[in-house]
Amino acid sequence: MSSIVAKNRKHLVLLSGRSHPALAEAVAQELGTDLAGMDARTFANGEIYARMMDSVRGADVFVLQSYGKPVNEWLMEQLIMVDALKRASAKRITVVMPYYPYSRQDKKGRGREPISARLVADLFKTAGADRIMSVDIHASQIQGFFDGPFDHLFAMPVLLEHFRDTLDPSTLTVVSPDMGRVRVADVWSDKLGAPLAIIHKRRDPLVPNQVSVHEIVGNVAGRTCLLVDDMIDTGRTILKAAEALKANGATNVIVAATHAIFSNPAAELLGSGVIDKVVVTDSIPLSDDQRFDCLEVLSIAPLLARAIREVFEDGSVTSMFDGAA
Amino acid sequence: MSSIVAKNRKHLVLLSGRSHPALAEAVAQELGTDLAGMDARTFANGEIYARMMDSVRGADVFVLQSYGKPVNEWLMEQLIMVDALKRASAKRITVVMPYYPYSRQDKKGRGREPISARLVADLFKTAGADRIMSVDIHASQIQGFFDGPFDHLFAMPVLLEHFRDTLDPSTLTVVSPDMGRVRVADVWSDKLGAPLAIIHKRRDPLVPNQVSVHEIVGNVAGRTCLLVDDMIDTGRTILKAAEALKANGATNVIVAATHAIFSNPAAELLGSGVIDKVVVTDSIPLSDDQRFDCLEVLSIAPLLARAIREVFEDGSVTSMFDGAA
Amino acid sequence: MSSIVAKNRKHLVLLSGRSHPALAEAVAQELGTDLAGMDARTFANGEIYARMMDSVRGADVFVLQSYGKPVNEWLMEQLIMVDALKRASAKRITVVMPYYPYSRQDKKGRGREPISARLVADLFKTAGADRIMSVDIHASQIQGFFDGPFDHLFAMPVLLEHFRDTLDPSTLTVVSPDMGRVRVADVWSDKLGAPLAIIHKRRDPLVPNQVSVHEIVGNVAGRTCLLVDDMIDTGRTILKAAEALKANGATNVIVAATHAIFSNPAAELLGSGVIDKVVVTDSIPLSDDQRFDCLEVLSIAPLLARAIREVFEDGSVTSMFDGAA
Amino acid sequence: MSSIVAKNRKHLVLLSGRSHPALAEAVAQELGTDLAGMDARTFANGEIYARMMDSVRGADVFVLQSYGKPVNEWLMEQLIMVDALKRASAKRITVVMPYYPYSRQDKKGRGREPISARLVADLFKTAGADRIMSVDIHASQIQGFFDGPFDHLFAMPVLLEHFRDTLDPSTLTVVSPDMGRVRVADVWSDKLGAPLAIIHKRRDPLVPNQVSVHEIVGNVAGRTCLLVDDMIDTGRTILKAAEALKANGATNVIVAATHAIFSNPAAELLGSGVIDKVVVTDSIPLSDDQRFDCLEVLSIAPLLARAIREVFEDGSVTSMFDGAA
Amino acid sequence: MSSIVAKNRKHLVLLSGRSHPALAEAVAQELGTDLAGMDARTFANGEIYARMMDSVRGADVFVLQSYGKPVNEWLMEQLIMVDALKRASAKRITVVMPYYPYSRQDKKGRGREPISARLVADLFKTAGADRIMSVDIHASQIQGFFDGPFDHLFAMPVLLEHFRDTLDPSTLTVVSPDMGRVRVADVWSDKLGAPLAIIHKRRDPLVPNQVSVHEIVGNVAGRTCLLVDDMIDTGRTILKAAEALKANGATNVIVAATHAIFSNPAAELLGSGVIDKVVVTDSIPLSDDQRFDCLEVLSIAPLLARAIREVFEDGSVTSMFDGAA
Amino acid sequence: MSSIVAKNRKHLVLLSGRSHPALAEAVAQELGTDLAGMDARTFANGEIYARMMDSVRGADVFVLQSYGKPVNEWLMEQLIMVDALKRASAKRITVVMPYYPYSRQDKKGRGREPISARLVADLFKTAGADRIMSVDIHASQIQGFFDGPFDHLFAMPVLLEHFRDTLDPSTLTVVSPDMGRVRVADVWSDKLGAPLAIIHKRRDPLVPNQVSVHEIVGNVAGRTCLLVDDMIDTGRTILKAAEALKANGATNVIVAATHAIFSNPAAELLGSGVIDKVVVTDSIPLSDDQRFDCLEVLSIAPLLARAIREVFEDGSVTSMFDGAA
Repeated sequence: MSSIVAKNRKHLVLLSGRSHPALAEAVAQELGTDLAGMDARTFANGEIYARMMDSVRGADVFVLQSYGKPVNEWLMEQLIMVDALKRASAKRITVVMPYYPYSRQDKKGRGREPISARLVADLFKTAGADRIMSVDIHASQIQGFFDGPFDHLFAMPVLLEHFRDTLDPSTLTVVSPDMGRVRVADVWSDKLGAPLAIIHKRRDPLVPNQVSVHEIVGNVAGRTCLLVDDMIDTGRTILKAAEALKANGATNVIVAATHAIFSNPAAELLGSGVIDKVVVTDSIPLSDDQRFDCLEVLSIAPLLARAIREVFEDGSVTSMFDGAA
Repeated sequence: MSSIVAKNRKHLVLLSGRSHPALAEAVAQELGTDLAGMDARTFANGEIYARMMDSVRGADVFVLQSYGKPVNEWLMEQLIMVDALKRASAKRITVVMPYYPYSRQDKKGRGREPISARLVADLFKTAGADRIMSVDIHASQIQGFFDGPFDHLFAMPVLLEHFRDTLDPSTLTVVSPDMGRVRVADVWSDKLGAPLAIIHKRRDPLVPNQVSVHEIVGNVAGRTCLLVDDMIDTGRTILKAAEALKANGATNVIVAATHAIFSNPAAELLGSGVIDKVVVTDSIPLSDDQRFDCLEVLSIAPLLARAIREVFEDGSVTSMFDGAA
Repeated sequence: MSSIVAKNRKHLVLLSGRSHPALAEAVAQELGTDLAGMDARTFANGEIYARMMDSVRGADVFVLQSYGKPVNEWLMEQLIMVDALKRASAKRITVVMPYYPYSRQDKKGRGREPISARLVADLFKTAGADRIMSVDIHASQIQGFFDGPFDHLFAMPVLLEHFRDTLDPSTLTVVSPDMGRVRVADVWSDKLGAPLAIIHKRRDPLVPNQVSVHEIVGNVAGRTCLLVDDMIDTGRTILKAAEALKANGATNVIVAATHAIFSNPAAELLGSGVIDKVVVTDSIPLSDDQRFDCLEVLSIAPLLARAIREVFEDGSVTSMFDGAA
Repeated sequence: MSSIVAKNRKHLVLLSGRSHPALAEAVAQELGTDLAGMDARTFANGEIYARMMDSVRGADVFVLQSYGKPVNEWLMEQLIMVDALKRASAKRITVVMPYYPYSRQDKKGRGREPISARLVADLFKTAGADRIMSVDIHASQIQGFFDGPFDHLFAMPVLLEHFRDTLDPSTLTVVSPDMGRVRVADVWSDKLGAPLAIIHKRRDPLVPNQVSVHEIVGNVAGRTCLLVDDMIDTGRTILKAAEALKANGATNVIVAATHAIFSNPAAELLGSGVIDKVVVTDSIPLSDDQRFDCLEVLSIAPLLARAIREVFEDGSVTSMFDGAA
Repeated sequence: MSSIVAKNRKHLVLLSGRSHPALAEAVAQELGTDLAGMDARTFANGEIYARMMDSVRGADVFVLQSYGKPVNEWLMEQLIMVDALKRASAKRITVVMPYYPYSRQDKKGRGREPISARLVADLFKTAGADRIMSVDIHASQIQGFFDGPFDHLFAMPVLLEHFRDTLDPSTLTVVSPDMGRVRVADVWSDKLGAPLAIIHKRRDPLVPNQVSVHEIVGNVAGRTCLLVDDMIDTGRTILKAAEALKANGATNVIVAATHAIFSNPAAELLGSGVIDKVVVTDSIPLSDDQRFDCLEVLSIAPLLARAIREVFEDGSVTSMFDGAA
Repeated sequence: MSSIVAKNRKHLVLLSGRSHPALAEAVAQELGTDLAGMDARTFANGEIYARMMDSVRGADVFVLQSYGKPVNEWLMEQLIMVDALKRASAKRITVVMPYYPYSRQDKKGRGREPISARLVADLFKTAGADRIMSVDIHASQIQGFFDGPFDHLFAMPVLLEHFRDTLDPSTLTVVSPDMGRVRVADVWSDKLGAPLAIIHKRRDPLVPNQVSVHEIVGNVAGRTCLLVDDMIDTGRTILKAAEALKANGATNVIVAATHAIFSNPAAELLGSGVIDKVVVTDSIPLSDDQRFDCLEVLSIAPLLARAIREVFEDGSVTSMFDGAA
């Protein structure tokens, strides 16, 4: 005979960078497995080293990295891990990045700017990534930056489930913090059966220079306002929106966002008392001094675990969101 | 001696597909040159053939195609021209597409959709294009779909100049036809010194199913309303917007848009009398039955010619728009 | 444990563009499956949209498109389908094109011509195709245009089987319509046990300019002549060949060809009475006004289905043709 | 100031592998330059080393290799030279291969065959070649195997000029040695104003197995027959053709071919007396024992030199052949 | 139903070029299979042809070539085989090259040199290789030249096992023939429990020009010296090292090396009596006149077979070497 | 006329990342130009933004980044700058990295390790770099990791010139700190006309575990010892070498190295008094607490400036080092 025949099994291996161990452990637990062993280190001069402890030959590997600070360290670490996986004969490498780094640099706003979100996609392709999985990317077009499958997950089901139990639709108004986010707020409004309001930031025609006015479209007086956004960075924008809502008679302001970047002074601003509650996910790790009293963090580990399982088993990620994605 | 030395001159060659000869001629005239000769034909079975009449060896070639119907014919023609140019040793090939085809398919709205705008960028890259030049693309992120320089031009200066002469700022209101276009309308409002209004389409909470209401944010009663958009396809959206404006007391409704796709029944709807004037550019050719009384077409040939010259002479395209692009 | 193990099954999914539903259905039936659901549409402005109805994650997908008119529409449709399949995580994508479009543009006959057949191969590679399957391509070298496996099928067994039952070798002569096709006619002659004749088109030395004479090499007087070719486009060449055969005493002229392109005025010419019978395959769809009395169409659906099954099951396509291909 | 400006000159550098120094010197002389210095060696274990003696930074380099035996040695040498040129910052690298190696392996004649002619094109692309220049390639489609410009030159003008002086059209017949070469012979016939004849090899229906008969189409009795082909390898085919011509009454048989591969026993067969004269070019070097009395070798150095100059100066290679190529 | 489901089996196919049939047979036997059939030939003009006799569709193919003289012939043969395998739909192609050709050209020692070892990696990538397997490459960095998995095997276990039985550690000294190989010799010293000595070649400060002195660091007088190296080419270096050892009182000199290139006059030098024993592997085939009395050849077939099996079965190649590789 | 002709000038533009402004300024000054303006920033969440202030269209751009801590920040910054340059139509982009980051991760020492030095080369290629310029890379093979020209510069001339004035060859010994660096030390020894000594680190056979002994080969007693290395990281290795030299009677120990990484506690160790002088270059910026009394820093700005000028003017970088590089 001139060939050897063997059964073909497939193996799922879950690896994680060092940015967010708690999330990685939670995903592993949801999947009913352990994180594969990694030896990842930063040398004295700042260079990163990463090596898998066990064979990944022929495996369907999911390598998770979360993108809090320092973003560029974690980016290089994940790229190096992908390179090591490629050279170690992994069969398929899926880069899992709950928050897509550099997603706000998705176009040339002016001449001679980079499009760093496209660069990030290309860097992972070059390192050896076969596919990307991410949650609530800033612009949907970023999917098109990667030359291959891109599983775009939505955290909304996780957040919605939380609010369904805690909010009364009859006194609730969903609010979009600016024009660019109306489409998302509209879906929330629909799912929760609550009316929509929009905040329109614009220059004050009576005052020269960059002073902006927050006009509110829709009824917010005497209502609980749910401000929804994809990410919160320094919190300045969302605080101003909340102040405008309160100034217009809102009784409560609740903020829901997927990605809690919480750069300084986010904790201070969001916890200053104007906002009554902030609900985010654990897509980015939060240190103790990024937390504050009215913050509630929901886990997206079950969401990631389910998507990973669907991908591994050739199921449907689309079906997880009733046709969206 | 062991090398031959020669002076290095550079040559600009302008070529055009068959979709919009008038625009191509106008660009050539603005540049002070002639269109280079092409033998382009469609065979009996529908296959396209294209051959340059003269040598393009070492030339800096700009190949222009406009994307009216039939879009896919013109797409294949331009791809075939680029292939022929590459094989004929053109030094640099710039694809000039005033309207970027498939630009509305720029993301996966649902699972298993294509991202055809990225596909188009990749097809041209594969055929041999070094760079793309386009006007007012539907989403700025499309620039990131091409792996190379992408000159994004704006028709606004062309349109603005027209309106500066014909409209009175004191009675004018700039209107965004929906939430997604507010940023553009905001710039218009600023440049013309006129206030801004926004049309917000949303579901009527009192009526079940997909009935939508057009709420108008801002003051339009007794004013001349200038609706601004990047493209007009069938005209249905813009007509409804105009009707809402008139219902709210607008005295005049003028529409300004860059790309006049004007699919059926655009001419009928736009020329029905609700809209007082429609101003577009000639980025897409219009047949006689796509025209109507209140239509005015401005040429972007000077804009394209100037950008081509800046690219050829290593000048700055950014400077054409005061820092934008 | 640090990995999850699962059985590895493989799934065949058959998809079709909109160009030739009857052939696609027939292939599906031969395979004992259904066509997978597609939502494919052409928008008002001519842009095409295509989305798969069900998950194709991990599937071995065969996407069929037939290339009658309008060729470029079907080309973009198939490219868009491949892009959608790639992004939807299909495991392997095989482009099935019974007739390879632009196959006659396979070389630079003159300077500055495109090589569109190579371009087509590259476009599909770029869109995400892993392999191509085609029937009786115009030049065998086109296989080398694709950077990957190319399954080249032959319709001859289908056609031969038909003629074995209906023709008498003792009165039959196989005729090549020109010098370029002698090799194929030679195989036919061998398989049918019938002698060979050749038509040699050349300039008449006695008459200036482009007047051509059809010289016939071999004995055709009093015989049934079987003209064999890979494709028939407008039918002009084949009609002239038939006329020459009749003028030289042929009693019957039968034409066999794989691809019935039948551009205008093929139906008129082929059905004009000179030719007694035309036998083709259904590799390209025929409208009613492309049909005529003496036309017989044989289906290549069984051929395609068997090749697809061999590819899916890692069998041998070569073995289908006794060592050829 | 923030940039340094300098004049941009371009330099032509001509390099050669070790396969055919005489041709390389002749091309250099025609160009009015010297061959650039190379240190090319074969080590004891058979590995080749090649290094340029002088800087080629920014130069327009033409690297010439001729493909006689041992083909694979010269192939690796040229690939290594291209790699060294790429890393030494040559601006543009043109691979000049008068005979394209592996050109007869241009398709899969049977399943599981390589397409080595495509492989050769890809190897040079990978090594760093920007363009290819070759003479009378076996199949025109090979141009499409290279992803870039391919200058296809024709030796016919060189050969024709020779025969115009030495042959009398009134007694001359141009003969194609088989069906596959009729098109080329037809052009010769036209240019020389002489009639055409064709040799048709086919199986003898009366004799089983592979015995072939050489049928001659056209009048050769009492005439000088000029057999034209692109290459002569072992000479067996051409000798049999010559014998058939003589058997049919030809008074003289002259053979014209571009590429004199002359594998054993070509010299013996071609010099055996049946053929009266063999005219070839020096595209491949000939050793003394590959030569014979009636052989005449014409140089293609002027042809190559002129094409190189046209490419360097952005002239037109097409114009060298009156529109062909 | 809209998909066909089948079990997914995997097949190992072992193919070999013509350079070293004995090694290929031995590997096949170790694996318990036969070599798959190949039709590989060299044509009269030196071009190589290769075709697989049986279907390799979907197979995990390992294609073995050994790199003795003529290196470039075997290189093209293996490249052509990989091209044929790619086009014949092999699922995965592993290039097995026990000795990596051109491995000593791994850097630019001077300006304008090629980096041929990188070129070789790129050529195989281009032809279609998915992975490379090699033994004791000259510089470990060469692994980084290939864009994909590279299985680097070590012959040391094979050689060590041999010496463990035949040498007495108490009288043994391991010797590195130069500075560049100390690291390897150190590992040998450790594994065999024997001290280390080093030969330091340097210019003699007292004598002008290139005269070199062999200084010996460490104690070799009265001891059996085991010189270890990765390859032996002409044997000059190793002979001089042996002479220096003997001159310093070594009682025996034994040489161990993985790759026996043995270019002329290696057999003469190594068999001249200075060296008492030479132990190599069969990674490169040896002709009779490359052999000599004190030569012993160990087979690496079991090593290659085990690595191939680990790769096929998704086991661990690293584990074969206790963490090395 | 159908083309526009213009003169072709070339422009050198020098850009710098934010890691080492002093070096960048010095290079600009040597070139007689200014650094082109950059707007580079790090956002609150750690993402980097970079935009060129002026047009770089058609320019020959050199973008300099130095790789001290934090390495990964500077790596992403330079990648983003290259992306911006590519999209802004720079004609050629040369990445200037005096110290090549991750150069010590140049091979797989064990299974499942990354080859990060190759990854870095690929990342820059992907971002758009045309060429790399670096100084004294850790392993010469890294040049082969980049698919394009790699200018490898040597700092030795800079350091040598310094020592020629300050050291007396008659009392000097050049010392290699380990076996891997002997080749470099040998060149120093030759250039300075001073003898060579080598430090050989090895395990002490009398003591179990990892205790190492520093054996010194060559005469160092009573001599000034010049230890030469390519880089100094924490300084531990070089301090131990110095201690061994002093223990063996060296009167002075001077250290010369190109790259002063100086990770903690380098300043403390090197300044502890064992070493009499440390001479390095400014390839990496040094903060005040990385400096110490006996440190002398020489500038490589003139070296970089000259190489940049040679590249820009198509001169010879090789000639700067008398044939090396």
